[in-house]
Amino acid sequence: MLTRIDRLHCLDGTDAAAGVASGAFTSSQLAEACIERTLVRDDDIHAWTTFDPEMVRRQAAARDAEKPRGALHGVPVGIKDILSTEDLPTSYNSEHFQAHHPNIDAAVVSLLRGAGAIIFGKNDTVEFAVNGRRAKTRNPHDLNRTPGGSSSGSAAAVADYQVPLAIGTQTGGSVIRPASYCGVWGMKPTWNAVSAEGMKSCAPSIDTLGWYGRSARDIELLCEVLGIAAYEPGTPTSLSGARVAFCRSPVWDKAGQASRDALALCVDTLRACGAEVVFLELPERFVGLTAAHKVIMQSEMQSTFLPEYRALGEALYPELVATIRNDAGFSRADLRAAYDLAGECRARFDELALPYDAVLTPSAPEEAPFGLENTGSATFNRIWTLLHTPCINIPAATAPTGMPVGMTMTGARFTDRRTLATASLLDSALPGKNGFPR
Amino acid sequence: MLTRIDRLHCLDGTDAAAGVASGAFTSSQLAEACIERTLVRDDDIHAWTTFDPEMVRRQAAARDAEKPRGALHGVPVGIKDILSTEDLPTSYNSEHFQAHHPNIDAAVVSLLRGAGAIIFGKNDTVEFAVNGRRAKTRNPHDLNRTPGGSSSGSAAAVADYQVPLAIGTQTGGSVIRPASYCGVWGMKPTWNAVSAEGMKSCAPSIDTLGWYGRSARDIELLCEVLGIAAYEPGTPTSLSGARVAFCRSPVWDKAGQASRDALALCVDTLRACGAEVVFLELPERFVGLTAAHKVIMQSEMQSTFLPEYRALGEALYPELVATIRNDAGFSRADLRAAYDLAGECRARFDELALPYDAVLTPSAPEEAPFGLENTGSATFNRIWTLLHTPCINIPAATAPTGMPVGMTMTGARFTDRRTLATASLLDSALPGKNGFPR
Repeated sequence: MLTRIDRLHCLDGTDAAAGVASGAFTSSQLAEACIERTLVRDDDIHAWTTFDPEMVRRQAAARDAEKPRGALHGVPVGIKDILSTEDLPTSYNSEHFQAHHPNIDAAVVSLLRGAGAIIFGKNDTVEFAVNGRRAKTRNPHDLNRTPGGSSSGSAAAVADYQVPLAIGTQTGGSVIRPASYCGVWGMKPTWNAVSAEGMKSCAPSIDTLGWYGRSARDIELLCEVLGIAAYEPGTPTSLSGARVAFCRSPVWDKAGQASRDALALCVDTLRACGAEVVFLELPERFVGLTAAHKVIMQSEMQSTFLPEYRALGEALYPELVATIRNDAGFSRADLRAAYDLAGECRARFDELALPYDAVLTPSAPEEAPFGLENTGSATFNRIWTLLHTPCINIPAATAPTGMPVGMTMTGARFTDRRTLATASLLDSALPGKNGFPR
Repeated sequence: MLTRIDRLHCLDGTDAAAGVASGAFTSSQLAEACIERTLVRDDDIHAWTTFDPEMVRRQAAARDAEKPRGALHGVPVGIKDILSTEDLPTSYNSEHFQAHHPNIDAAVVSLLRGAGAIIFGKNDTVEFAVNGRRAKTRNPHDLNRTPGGSSSGSAAAVADYQVPLAIGTQTGGSVIRPASYCGVWGMKPTWNAVSAEGMKSCAPSIDTLGWYGRSARDIELLCEVLGIAAYEPGTPTSLSGARVAFCRSPVWDKAGQASRDALALCVDTLRACGAEVVFLELPERFVGLTAAHKVIMQSEMQSTFLPEYRALGEALYPELVATIRNDAGFSRADLRAAYDLAGECRARFDELALPYDAVLTPSAPEEAPFGLENTGSATFNRIWTLLHTPCINIPAATAPTGMPVGMTMTGARFTDRRTLATASLLDSALPGKNGFPR
């Protein structure tokens, strides 16, 4: 284990927690390394809307002065700035909410604090985690590229070694896409498996919390802390004999060469390790899920953003106003049909997926695009968000441009831990490309 | 219109708003009448966990000093104490949260304030709106009987003329049952049609806000304020030619004589007014919805109450601890099956219901039981909550005991306004039994 004090920010969450627990270093030393890294890098990366080193130091000192609370004792975690935190503002990266400061912790923040985590700061996000103002965040692998959105700061802060762990949210592709673009592990668990209380709502029937780390075991550690149990037996312990499906999904025509190559690399690696890899074609009905996602998201936003619209009206950004006013003209019959298609496909996908240890599918069309305005496409993520399935981004490959390219492992609802275990096994077998030291 | 200043608390919300708007009386005069009524009655009814007359007076004075904000300008509204309010604590009626005071308004509270409403106080509730500690609230029609739960204080405060309007929530039968027991109008709209942000989560896939009033038009007024539009055409303007189904639901064997009589009265009245009334039998699959509701509610509570469990452990009430620990042993396969049955039946019910202007069904097995410990049964409400359909309680009849007996009108998802219009037409045709002056 790395124990040079000035390199503690390079530890993953698991090693960081173990180091604090064993007394190899203090939470304050760990926090100081993360603070120093953040201060050095912040002008380039801009991963935070609010970052107060003194508050971090106070939390670390308090953790050092008390008995261990839990599995994350003394470990810094970043929080996307649409999740409320008792001691820091929650701005949604909106000009209208710069002074917004709910004095309560979101459920996920409460669980993290209960496990001893240090709330390191608020991660920049696309406005309201939807659209409008972009995060100022840049991709640590190439400052001229987007880190993806909307959980831009959460993914970039972890990729840049500023914090070992961070929390994001996903309604379309806002956890998995940034993970793919930034070359980190990301997880969107089964919908509603972690309480979204204290999160700014967008589309409650699909809004999902998620998290980032630099190792599979860190994703698992957060599963434990956030209550994602290994609900059911059947978790594979070896790729030999494992059964994995690969699914091109209905938007396969959007996959660029880098994602096609990464998928092929994963399939080849799985097969080389003795896994049975099967091609899974989704039924024709699934083609409608992308359109259904749009109807549901935009229709639900008419309710969730009504208070903001009543208070701010046309001062909100034009695209949001158009959505709230339903300029697209979605009827409630459209919405019922979208809900019913989603319900039907959820049941059907689980039937198809349950025989497999995981289902492999692209995380994004390609590596991160240039510029900060275009945060990339959620097209490969939306159907899984709508299907409520657990999704894990594996930082699987590197494109010829040198940029990371992720692959998603998904599966039936509530097979989160089985899916993660399979992803971890694949990761161990892949050529070492993600570049994160253990 | 009643305009005696000392009787202003007897006005419904619509007349109260009109009176303030026209200058017939001030918001302060209206508020004072409600305050006086509340102070006189509070020792008997106990509808509030927090009630601060000075804060009410300050709000009323502010409304009187400004231009009208909206449709509820100067009108007092009660708020169930699981919804956060910037200026009042939110205790969940839990001994562990007596000092809990989120400094932000729930979405519904924000919409109410935006329309000019006065937040009158926090209504007592069953602990966490689930179980455990009961509200201290008594039924205004008989102090020896329950007002129902969990929105006990909201329904009783409206029934007792302390406020014209109040907000509740429903995960099982917590809006409609108290409305039936207290003889007031209650509405649980289509799931997710009003943002639940700022509500203590219980089971997010079915948690639904609702509201109370003493007239159908007040329920409609709150629909307008809270963004429930008449999404689609087809709202009936007369019972003559209207088409109504009556549905005994899979739990009809639980209906006592009072509810059977009330259903017969409504059917007879509809027919006498020229409506076509058809018997709707639900398909066999719907029988499983009651068990599915239990699986979903209890499984989701394992996530939503995890922060409280981690912080408080066995200090929480035993039934909640057993639920969070999953002592019932529900598997995630059970949960998937429950979600899928719900999804299937949602689509099927809408198909069955859309040809009708509304579907009539009991609100409760019988009138309010004696005592405060037993808050009555949600058996007639759960399946509609799970189906996400709009439900409106009509204070339709009076039992031989003198207690009110409600009937529910429901319909396909998002036919809220059509269902309400049909309910209002039925109400106008029923013998005058609910006893509320206009």
